[in-house]
Amino acid sequence: MTETAAGRALPHPEREDIRLEGVLHAVSDPMRLRIVRELATKEAELTCSQFDLPVTKSTSTHHFRVLRENGVIRQVYRGTAKMNALRRDDLDGLFPGLLASLLAAADRQSVRLGDDG
Amino acid sequence: MTETAAGRALPHPEREDIRLEGVLHAVSDPMRLRIVRELATKEAELTCSQFDLPVTKSTSTHHFRVLRENGVIRQVYRGTAKMNALRRDDLDGLFPGLLASLLAAADRQSVRLGDDG
Repeated sequence: MTETAAGRALPHPEREDIRLEGVLHAVSDPMRLRIVRELATKEAELTCSQFDLPVTKSTSTHHFRVLRENGVIRQVYRGTAKMNALRRDDLDGLFPGLLASLLAAADRQSVRLGDDG
Repeated sequence: MTETAAGRALPHPEREDIRLEGVLHAVSDPMRLRIVRELATKEAELTCSQFDLPVTKSTSTHHFRVLRENGVIRQVYRGTAKMNALRRDDLDGLFPGLLASLLAAADRQSVRLGDDG
């Protein structure tokens, strides 16, 4: 995944600059955890507007930015659309098994609490 | 582990009230992650003062409280000492494998960054 149009490229940490504490902070928010789960389930790039989040657009933008800045997702412009993808390879490379166990824990909690998950 | 002297018992969430997001928030701070790793390694109750944290006493107290209030540790008075223990059974019961993968990720990062871990 490359960032083409230089003027529109968004800053991302390199893999080696991703920190566990930052990843944990990023996913400790319910809305951001929901975004991560949806990206993991769909296994595809999604635009921000494809997420049906019960927050304002500016709050949503903030959440995607926190995920990007902490190395959890990659945001790339494709034409006029900003596409979001999970940095699964980077996260699995740095912290093998962590993402899977986080997603499993989130699934389990959703079932337990009767969320739509 | 019971809280004996009622007047001095500290509030803890019941297992079923522990939330993944809260746990992730609690361990997303470097000092708090360090406390959790030390409790996991020692596999024993430790007093707050047994942790050699580079922060003030009040900051340290705050970190232990965040861990307790989010269900990550149990704090119990034994005589005059406040003892800290990881709620491993509760966390493993709610989120099987999560604590282990968090600890493994933290170990791996320490090695990679050359921290004393």
